[in-house]
Amino acid sequence: MRIQFSKMHGLGNDFVVIDAIHQPVDLSPDQVRLLAHRRFGVGCDQVLLVERPSDPAAADFRYRIFNADGNEVEQCGNGARCFAVFVRERGLTAKDHIPVETAAGIIHLQVQPDGQVTVDMGPPRLKPWQIPFEAESAMTSYPLEVEGETYEIGAVSMGNPHAVLRVDNVQTAPVARLGPLIEAHPRFPRHVNVGFMQVVSPGEIRLRVYERGVGETLACGTGACAAVVSGRIQGLLDETVAVDLPGGRLVINWAGQEEAPVMMTGPATQVFTGSIDI
Amino acid sequence: MRIQFSKMHGLGNDFVVIDAIHQPVDLSPDQVRLLAHRRFGVGCDQVLLVERPSDPAAADFRYRIFNADGNEVEQCGNGARCFAVFVRERGLTAKDHIPVETAAGIIHLQVQPDGQVTVDMGPPRLKPWQIPFEAESAMTSYPLEVEGETYEIGAVSMGNPHAVLRVDNVQTAPVARLGPLIEAHPRFPRHVNVGFMQVVSPGEIRLRVYERGVGETLACGTGACAAVVSGRIQGLLDETVAVDLPGGRLVINWAGQEEAPVMMTGPATQVFTGSIDI
Repeated sequence: MRIQFSKMHGLGNDFVVIDAIHQPVDLSPDQVRLLAHRRFGVGCDQVLLVERPSDPAAADFRYRIFNADGNEVEQCGNGARCFAVFVRERGLTAKDHIPVETAAGIIHLQVQPDGQVTVDMGPPRLKPWQIPFEAESAMTSYPLEVEGETYEIGAVSMGNPHAVLRVDNVQTAPVARLGPLIEAHPRFPRHVNVGFMQVVSPGEIRLRVYERGVGETLACGTGACAAVVSGRIQGLLDETVAVDLPGGRLVINWAGQEEAPVMMTGPATQVFTGSIDI
Repeated sequence: MRIQFSKMHGLGNDFVVIDAIHQPVDLSPDQVRLLAHRRFGVGCDQVLLVERPSDPAAADFRYRIFNADGNEVEQCGNGARCFAVFVRERGLTAKDHIPVETAAGIIHLQVQPDGQVTVDMGPPRLKPWQIPFEAESAMTSYPLEVEGETYEIGAVSMGNPHAVLRVDNVQTAPVARLGPLIEAHPRFPRHVNVGFMQVVSPGEIRLRVYERGVGETLACGTGACAAVVSGRIQGLLDETVAVDLPGGRLVINWAGQEEAPVMMTGPATQVFTGSIDI
């Protein structure tokens, strides 16, 4: 099977994106692993398939995301932005507002005049049982004991669990040491992503994220959302915040009510197009 | 500038290969670094440019190899095999025997009926000053003291210096510990590549190579040549030897006289083709 694809990235999180509407594509886990391999395949963090929606009245497309290990995953903010740029650049749609079916439900994407894409990431979940996090009741921050020291952390779910630790300087933050200790802390029964947030001003933070099961990454979209939500409920941040990650900048907007969706805006770039026999 | 390219690999050592005859390509070091970047570019160990020869009477093509850091390098056995498969698959030649101009001089490539490629790697150099290695006179092996222990090593230059250490089991060989210690040993003034060779039979070895300045790699072509030369002058190996590297198998042939060239045969694979604006 010969497949045409685009290689794209959103802040360094990279994707092989495949139009599965105009070419018949049905990937086995082995084929996903091969496509994702950086020497024997194309190389990417995730493979993204663009398909027809199951209900054309509700969404214009469906997309599916597969991790490099071959497993299908629900959602990915960086991937959603790449999807939107892909369907526009390939002429699959001319719309600015694109409703899309994902394994996590319908999401709404908005292409901005400058080509950046806004993704509705849904409302945050702050109750301990929603995260899940072992605590008596929801608080704006919680003391967490790690190796005899107590850290004050925020705890937020954006569909996946996040702990947010405020630091004075993100450059010197002990990400490699504290990341794995908090990730596997017994009070987070499903483990947790760990954000290290430096508040520069109410409208700007710097963030490094230690991703659950992965380690530090260049840009974690849900981590940026969780950090802004955590900072905002602590009264440290405005409604719109620029988040500087190692891979680049995202802009997060959250009105502040618990039911309000978190809106994430950022770039997506097509690097090259290609053709592979698999 | 839009560039058409092929992504290829030889035993996992991977290349972006560009026809610079039929498209005008002149790469700056920054453009090489971008092409080689695995997230923001195509991703490869080296970029290989196929050009017209400066003397068409002596060679059919010229090729140039650039490391991922942007620097031009002289030669690469895995790259030479990829070059040969590229010019045949792209229809740039129909010949089985291809003389090519490289920064290290003219080399001769032979495409075998099964698609594997034989590269004339030139004769080995065994005199200590040629390697360079600090020793009174050329020997089939030398005692080398490392942290108070004495190891028996072979020393061979294939254009670059190699130390070869015989081990009982390549799987359990202390590559990560001994590799850097031998690489920077004071008796190798320009440092050295370090091969760990397990002799399975006179016609078969297993080899892991700790490359100078890089660390352990999947497949080092000159390392395979050096190991076979070293084993052969010690009377351990036949004229033709299969070398199993972590990335796959090379077959090395050396007649045994010091002036005889070492012939290396192995595969090269095109993974995908693409197009990028840089």
